[in-house]
Amino acid sequence: MEAHIWMTGRVGSDVERRDVREGLMFASFRLACTPRLHRAGEWVDADTTWITVDCVRALAENVLASISKGDPVIVVGRLRTHAWVDATGIPHERLTIEAASVGHDLTVGRTAFERVRPSLSRPESVELGDSVESVESVESIEEIVDAVLEAVA
Amino acid sequence: MEAHIWMTGRVGSDVERRDVREGLMFASFRLACTPRLHRAGEWVDADTTWITVDCVRALAENVLASISKGDPVIVVGRLRTHAWVDATGIPHERLTIEAASVGHDLTVGRTAFERVRPSLSRPESVELGDSVESVESVESIEEIVDAVLEAVA
Amino acid sequence: MEAHIWMTGRVGSDVERRDVREGLMFASFRLACTPRLHRAGEWVDADTTWITVDCVRALAENVLASISKGDPVIVVGRLRTHAWVDATGIPHERLTIEAASVGHDLTVGRTAFERVRPSLSRPESVELGDSVESVESVESIEEIVDAVLEAVA
Amino acid sequence: MEAHIWMTGRVGSDVERRDVREGLMFASFRLACTPRLHRAGEWVDADTTWITVDCVRALAENVLASISKGDPVIVVGRLRTHAWVDATGIPHERLTIEAASVGHDLTVGRTAFERVRPSLSRPESVELGDSVESVESVESIEEIVDAVLEAVA
Repeated sequence: MEAHIWMTGRVGSDVERRDVREGLMFASFRLACTPRLHRAGEWVDADTTWITVDCVRALAENVLASISKGDPVIVVGRLRTHAWVDATGIPHERLTIEAASVGHDLTVGRTAFERVRPSLSRPESVELGDSVESVESVESIEEIVDAVLEAVA
Repeated sequence: MEAHIWMTGRVGSDVERRDVREGLMFASFRLACTPRLHRAGEWVDADTTWITVDCVRALAENVLASISKGDPVIVVGRLRTHAWVDATGIPHERLTIEAASVGHDLTVGRTAFERVRPSLSRPESVELGDSVESVESVESIEEIVDAVLEAVA
Repeated sequence: MEAHIWMTGRVGSDVERRDVREGLMFASFRLACTPRLHRAGEWVDADTTWITVDCVRALAENVLASISKGDPVIVVGRLRTHAWVDATGIPHERLTIEAASVGHDLTVGRTAFERVRPSLSRPESVELGDSVESVESVESIEEIVDAVLEAVA
Repeated sequence: MEAHIWMTGRVGSDVERRDVREGLMFASFRLACTPRLHRAGEWVDADTTWITVDCVRALAENVLASISKGDPVIVVGRLRTHAWVDATGIPHERLTIEAASVGHDLTVGRTAFERVRPSLSRPESVELGDSVESVESVESIEEIVDAVLEAVA
């Protein structure tokens, strides 16, 4: 069973950073998508869809360095549920996108791109680079996300 | 801005029918997706993602006639938010899939298919067929869904 | 790098079966997608997109047992290139969909679904079931597809 | 019938510009996607998938200004077939992606983003901006692409 999604929209929050442990960083933001509908012969805005986007490792680093509230972005990845019980015992559930990739949307503006070599750019990246060795696969990214979300719940 | 999704999973509820007005039918069900993750060298089940799937018109009719709780299905469509305020004034928000198509998943079993001609098969389909004339586009389907959801909120 | 696709369309060929080795079956068909475009104020048919869909293992078995030329289907999976050199030395390249799932499209008709237990249903399925043990992951399916395509090229 | 795709990969060619008529620009590039497969217990590169990506209007302008050969990108859009007959009478067919959006892939590097207001930024954009008024919808973009491809075939 799989759940694959692509969305274009605006970043509706600041990007939040969470350092889970040495060498493992996590970045999240809210994405707002307002589709255009053809209604009664003209194009109008539909209701805005809001969803949280979670990024890990190098993607998290680069999203933190590149993305600001209000930016138009493309997000591709997997739809996930995260369920938790709060301090008062009430269960909660939230749908999120586990991002495979994020980028600025070139329908709205231009970008200057700079390739980043994790092991050289910043000290904490060395450990991030190291951890990449053991988490090469998409599945391992999901595993990290799960571990992270459990850790921060 | 767009939000396109495909999911494979199991139907986790009965299919609910709502007749909005003469000739316009609406069907919804809960979809459960439990992805397999590669974790520490072996494949395990991740947390289950739950989401509501909304169908209109001919798709709604055929889903009602074909799909049962527990069935493995493929769903393709658009991710939407539906927001409402309940009787006590508390705002709610729910992410749903507005289905473009639904089908039984042939990784798990076999299907016998029968083409349906809406205008001949059943009396209520005549009106559904009629209304199709004026709602040809995907955008018009979204418009109907919005109208329906506002009507039933 | 990833390439995920969902398509709805009609099956434009017979489903072809290839038995690669004992216990490993492969099924392929041509898919035709004719999108509706909004052009100068009305909806018209765009050019038809044709692509080959490849299925393996249980999905191949069930597609062979369920799908016929002309059927409306949903296909989800990954876009792949297959390159080969023919007997005269000319290189060829073909884009295909490696199907994760296939199903009849319920926007057009109804289906009766029957779950299949590979190890009980048919003798050749026993070996197919056996081979599943060692090819649990999506990646292993891709590996099989590659092996198969190299074998049949 | 619909065909939606998202891909991450590298730009494998220069971006080609085609001015179809005053105010209508078109940009295309080749995209290469080399997925990682889990094969016999380790991760290896699969065969590279190559596909042409077509962009129109503001997206074409910004892709030309932002994207270079070798850049890692995300592409989302629709899969299309383009068929033509060459000067010797031989029919050809090519699958392409009609891009809804393109962006630099932040898994590999960082971007600085600058919003572009077409009607102010450059003279030729004025006409492009003007034409946007009458081609607001995705369907109209497809219509333009068709017209363009017919014009340049």
